[in-house]
Amino acid sequence: MTTREAGTPARYHHGDLRNALLEAGHALLEEGGPTALSIREIARRVGVSAPAAYHHFSGLDDIAVALAERGFGKLAARLQAAPSNAKGQLAPAGMAYVAFARDNPGLYRLMFGEGFKGAFSAHDRIRALRSDAYEVLKTGLSRRLPTEEIGTAALFLWSLTHGLALLMIDGQFDPGADPEALVAAVLRLSGKGLPTSAERTDPA
Amino acid sequence: MTTREAGTPARYHHGDLRNALLEAGHALLEEGGPTALSIREIARRVGVSAPAAYHHFSGLDDIAVALAERGFGKLAARLQAAPSNAKGQLAPAGMAYVAFARDNPGLYRLMFGEGFKGAFSAHDRIRALRSDAYEVLKTGLSRRLPTEEIGTAALFLWSLTHGLALLMIDGQFDPGADPEALVAAVLRLSGKGLPTSAERTDPA
Repeated sequence: MTTREAGTPARYHHGDLRNALLEAGHALLEEGGPTALSIREIARRVGVSAPAAYHHFSGLDDIAVALAERGFGKLAARLQAAPSNAKGQLAPAGMAYVAFARDNPGLYRLMFGEGFKGAFSAHDRIRALRSDAYEVLKTGLSRRLPTEEIGTAALFLWSLTHGLALLMIDGQFDPGADPEALVAAVLRLSGKGLPTSAERTDPA
Repeated sequence: MTTREAGTPARYHHGDLRNALLEAGHALLEEGGPTALSIREIARRVGVSAPAAYHHFSGLDDIAVALAERGFGKLAARLQAAPSNAKGQLAPAGMAYVAFARDNPGLYRLMFGEGFKGAFSAHDRIRALRSDAYEVLKTGLSRRLPTEEIGTAALFLWSLTHGLALLMIDGQFDPGADPEALVAAVLRLSGKGLPTSAERTDPA
């Protein structure tokens, strides 16, 4: 991210300025969460006037939507890049999902509407991108499940990773010395399930 | 909840007014989410002056903490009241957890800090109450798991129910005609896990 002194106007090619504004917006999200987003502050950080920023984004909702779009694109790329293995384990995709949220907590919160629920709820493009990321998850499941079970299984995996990611980035529990090992242990349970009481051999 | 005409001062016993203020606060949460909380509006709704409300709560953070406390108490009571059965199934507790969040979406968001992250993060009482609700979950697990596995299993269940609850109350997917049946189907997977690809008999 480029931070410039006030009074030193920066010059960008069209696409470069848009990207610079989005990078500055992402940095703001990570510093203060979705409520910290401000076009004026974003413009200040990249060294352009607020009107120059408004040339690219019609307002705060518009830049929030653009940031969320980029976020879903990055998330889908991470899920696709997660190593698969011969056993078709889901853990790598789950690990990649939770790692993305932990690396970009402010962006992740924005992607799920924090601070912009009204602007996002009816936004077709956000819905389509969320759906794309979800499809990557479903594709992984299609290798191991009959078609009619994929919907429930995908929602199960998404709930687990979304919940775990939020509990972690919200600091709701102490993850101990090795958070990644804890995430891996929790995700392993998605493959084998919790044992039923009948499996215990000692008398209850 | 009692709504009174302006200019008709209401009279309450001490504890009654506190409860009335909290009930009005809960109603506000459900109408507009955590950001809609306002002591002035809460006072107006119960028909008392703002100073009368400040007699019970030192400020907005204080009433938010009190509302979250009540929320965790209600959640723990719901989990404890969930029917258990001979097989020690966890689904009833999971169903009760998700149902609580769906019945009280604004309160549930507040309990996890939305809009009040700063005030909640260092608050010992909130931490203790969250921990109490978590213990109810762990007690259910202790009947079926060796002690050393309870921590991971509890985090697995909490992540799953927290994630599913938030995806539902945020409207992130279409729950179809029978949301409760979908919740039950997702929770059943927590007991059996997702099948590994090795279990499929058709060639991949």
